[in-house]
Amino acid sequence: MQKILVANRGEIALRVMRSAREMGIKTVAVYSAADRDALHVRYADEAVFIGEAPSSKSYLVGERIIEACRQTGAEGIHPGYGFLSENAAFARMVREAGLTLIGPSPEAMEVMGNKLSAKAAALKYNIPMVPGTEEAISDIPEAKKRAVEVGFPILIKAAAGGGGKGMRIVEKAEDFEEQMHLAVSEATSAFGDGSVFIERYVSSPRHIEIQVLGDTHGNIVHLFERDCSVQRRHQKVIEEAPSSVLTPGIREQMGRCAVDVARSVNYTGAGTVEFIMDDQLNFYFLEMNTRLQVEHPVTELITGIDLVKEQIKIARGEPISFKQQDLEIKGHAVELRVYAEDPANNFLPDIGTLQTYVTPKGPGVRVDDGFEQGMEIPIYYDPMIAKLTTYGKDRKEAIERMIRAIDEYQITGITTTLGFGKFVMQHEAFTSGNFDTHFVKKYFTPEVLQTGNAEEAMIAAIVMEKLLGDRSYHQNGQMMATETSAWVKNRKKLV
Amino acid sequence: MQKILVANRGEIALRVMRSAREMGIKTVAVYSAADRDALHVRYADEAVFIGEAPSSKSYLVGERIIEACRQTGAEGIHPGYGFLSENAAFARMVREAGLTLIGPSPEAMEVMGNKLSAKAAALKYNIPMVPGTEEAISDIPEAKKRAVEVGFPILIKAAAGGGGKGMRIVEKAEDFEEQMHLAVSEATSAFGDGSVFIERYVSSPRHIEIQVLGDTHGNIVHLFERDCSVQRRHQKVIEEAPSSVLTPGIREQMGRCAVDVARSVNYTGAGTVEFIMDDQLNFYFLEMNTRLQVEHPVTELITGIDLVKEQIKIARGEPISFKQQDLEIKGHAVELRVYAEDPANNFLPDIGTLQTYVTPKGPGVRVDDGFEQGMEIPIYYDPMIAKLTTYGKDRKEAIERMIRAIDEYQITGITTTLGFGKFVMQHEAFTSGNFDTHFVKKYFTPEVLQTGNAEEAMIAAIVMEKLLGDRSYHQNGQMMATETSAWVKNRKKLV
Repeated sequence: MQKILVANRGEIALRVMRSAREMGIKTVAVYSAADRDALHVRYADEAVFIGEAPSSKSYLVGERIIEACRQTGAEGIHPGYGFLSENAAFARMVREAGLTLIGPSPEAMEVMGNKLSAKAAALKYNIPMVPGTEEAISDIPEAKKRAVEVGFPILIKAAAGGGGKGMRIVEKAEDFEEQMHLAVSEATSAFGDGSVFIERYVSSPRHIEIQVLGDTHGNIVHLFERDCSVQRRHQKVIEEAPSSVLTPGIREQMGRCAVDVARSVNYTGAGTVEFIMDDQLNFYFLEMNTRLQVEHPVTELITGIDLVKEQIKIARGEPISFKQQDLEIKGHAVELRVYAEDPANNFLPDIGTLQTYVTPKGPGVRVDDGFEQGMEIPIYYDPMIAKLTTYGKDRKEAIERMIRAIDEYQITGITTTLGFGKFVMQHEAFTSGNFDTHFVKKYFTPEVLQTGNAEEAMIAAIVMEKLLGDRSYHQNGQMMATETSAWVKNRKKLV
Repeated sequence: MQKILVANRGEIALRVMRSAREMGIKTVAVYSAADRDALHVRYADEAVFIGEAPSSKSYLVGERIIEACRQTGAEGIHPGYGFLSENAAFARMVREAGLTLIGPSPEAMEVMGNKLSAKAAALKYNIPMVPGTEEAISDIPEAKKRAVEVGFPILIKAAAGGGGKGMRIVEKAEDFEEQMHLAVSEATSAFGDGSVFIERYVSSPRHIEIQVLGDTHGNIVHLFERDCSVQRRHQKVIEEAPSSVLTPGIREQMGRCAVDVARSVNYTGAGTVEFIMDDQLNFYFLEMNTRLQVEHPVTELITGIDLVKEQIKIARGEPISFKQQDLEIKGHAVELRVYAEDPANNFLPDIGTLQTYVTPKGPGVRVDDGFEQGMEIPIYYDPMIAKLTTYGKDRKEAIERMIRAIDEYQITGITTTLGFGKFVMQHEAFTSGNFDTHFVKKYFTPEVLQTGNAEEAMIAAIVMEKLLGDRSYHQNGQMMATETSAWVKNRKKLV
């Protein structure tokens, strides 16, 4: 494989091209009309225009990607994350075109792409699962019977879902019918598939995921965990490795489970097995993401392994470049996703120009971005400007570096999540490690707005306003409505 | 220590302030008239103007530094490297003012500041020395007698010297008088002290240095070696850690010797013990630098230790934060010094504006610099723009990242040593690890200019022209003159 096409844009396109370049492999960029001047286009050895700005007319059109390979002679395709990265039909198209997808097989994507088939595959290896239904349900009385067996509180989840859509927590049996009805109709409208499953609701969960790599020689290894518990709207915003809660024994168990999940589909390439963990450190399999994750840099920093290079080597048929026993965790890494969002406009993506854009430097700071000073943030795509990742000899140093790096980051023209990141880094719940996925809900309270110092309160207000923009953020829609009005009132006082 | 003053400028001032900020310590910058808009001034919490642009009127004036501490309430002074960092009189002044120097005692500086007293101190611990005179000599017949005892080729070095001034290689006895005469007069005019010493000339030397730390509790540890063998004009330009030639046994021996050298002066703070190594891996003590080195980042990357934080902790009376046995080398790091130099003008410092200035990013890349796009490089100081350091799981990956990072670095308006760095990184002698301090002399030959590819030849030509600008580059002045004219002729053909 002498030339690869990167079927993506922004920071991840650059990220992939950097590793390819270090390996002496030529790179081809693809770009939409909105990305003519993007950095990934300038970085690549060649670039091919693939269509209009909306992804559905460019980055999501598999045929255009294949055609761009034909034009340029690219032999492999790296899909990055998002877009076509977990699309089994595209993976098949690539195979049929005689090209190599730098990723898993379409079969593995298909099994893991559906929560129920993923669970069924994992069950072969006795992977711990949250107690609940094993099959999709749409019949309400039957579902209620199962819910009573599992025990309340329970969670209703769309079988085809993601991003919190079609998700409902039910505290007690008498609320079940109403919530189930809502979940089914939400799932139907969002995914065209109303089937759901029911599981025990873990009330103080950590989101812990394990990075795995599998090669075509049957080797599967794991690269320890990432803790992605700080989320808003069910989306990760801060990730770290290692987790501050795992013991060596549990880390080993989770690693073994993740390798087994990958083995259940003969997984090749880089993938991530996601678990939910309760406050007794019981962990349960959630799903497997069959691609490189946004947050992969934290794993690279604590292991010294370049995951993109491993992906490319695996796709070339080479074995993974190390053995499980050669790996060890050294130090600690934290990542903040820096989003271009306008706090004065419900944190909607901000489409201005990066009038000032100076990234932090010095020891322990890694920046992955797709922009330069003077560039515009297009409205068509995910508004992530950069991933800011810091590394230290321990968690405390990584956090101190993150605060220093946030202070150094200069962005004008567009408002970002940098201030939110600083708020989290300075919060006692985060520094102590004593937090769960409800961090934002718990700590961005009306009290913070009233009693915190001015800077902290302002940041909290901004974040609140953003949260209000998306009703699907909280798992419990009812409770959200009440809290909302208090936050709005308090924010008004401040502004 | 709640507030420290950084008595330096450029990248090292920023470097120190970054660690201080991570520790929650306030920082004070000092600046000359040429540095009013410099980054270190903007980065600090406070900044004090200390005089006109020439260092002798600002950064070298100890009284101004002390006065700036009084004005701002800074309790400690970090001197960086260069300027006052190894000035024992300044260290005394700081002590007498009731302030804390973040560095060793004036007594340790004094002993190590003179090559002969440094050797005498080290001899107490049986540190291997290059065979030669133990005392300074200025009498020519006596010196010749000693030279014959030591055995030719021999090296004549100024006792008070540095940077290659007053240095002569003598191949055979009959040349001795003439070269000794030249060395003494050069040393007298450069340092005001004509005394020299004589030692065996190591013909294929590596420059290997060991990083040490000593605290006020009597603990002294080493942080392994740096290989700084790629030099021009006796000045390091590329450094790496670990060295590609050391065995674990020799690494341990050198580490133990370095700790003993530090112990011989009850060393506190960060210091570097420099050795010369011959092609049989025999090593000999050269000197000790009683400050943080320019090239300290490579050590930070392979050990995960923040050396500036350790310096500050030691100055506060705390013990070193780790034990020798906790340290291990992980991965490999390479540093390139990016200088602002104009190849069309004998590589003299280039004083233009950084019209484009975009630094490389992504995995394994660390940039320490003191400039932003649009800034001017002042003529008054060392023309280093940045230190570009790359880290990889092994030497091969670190080198591949360096090449990738050099390609990504965008500088217009000023010519730099980036191209030279790429030449070295791609040279077989460097990639194979089979090189010594004569790398530049050996490989930038007329043949390279004639037979290399166009890009390589051009870079070589540029470097040649630079070398010609400084006659003191080669240890053997005679030979230099001959080579020079061939290079000039060949360069002319190309341009």
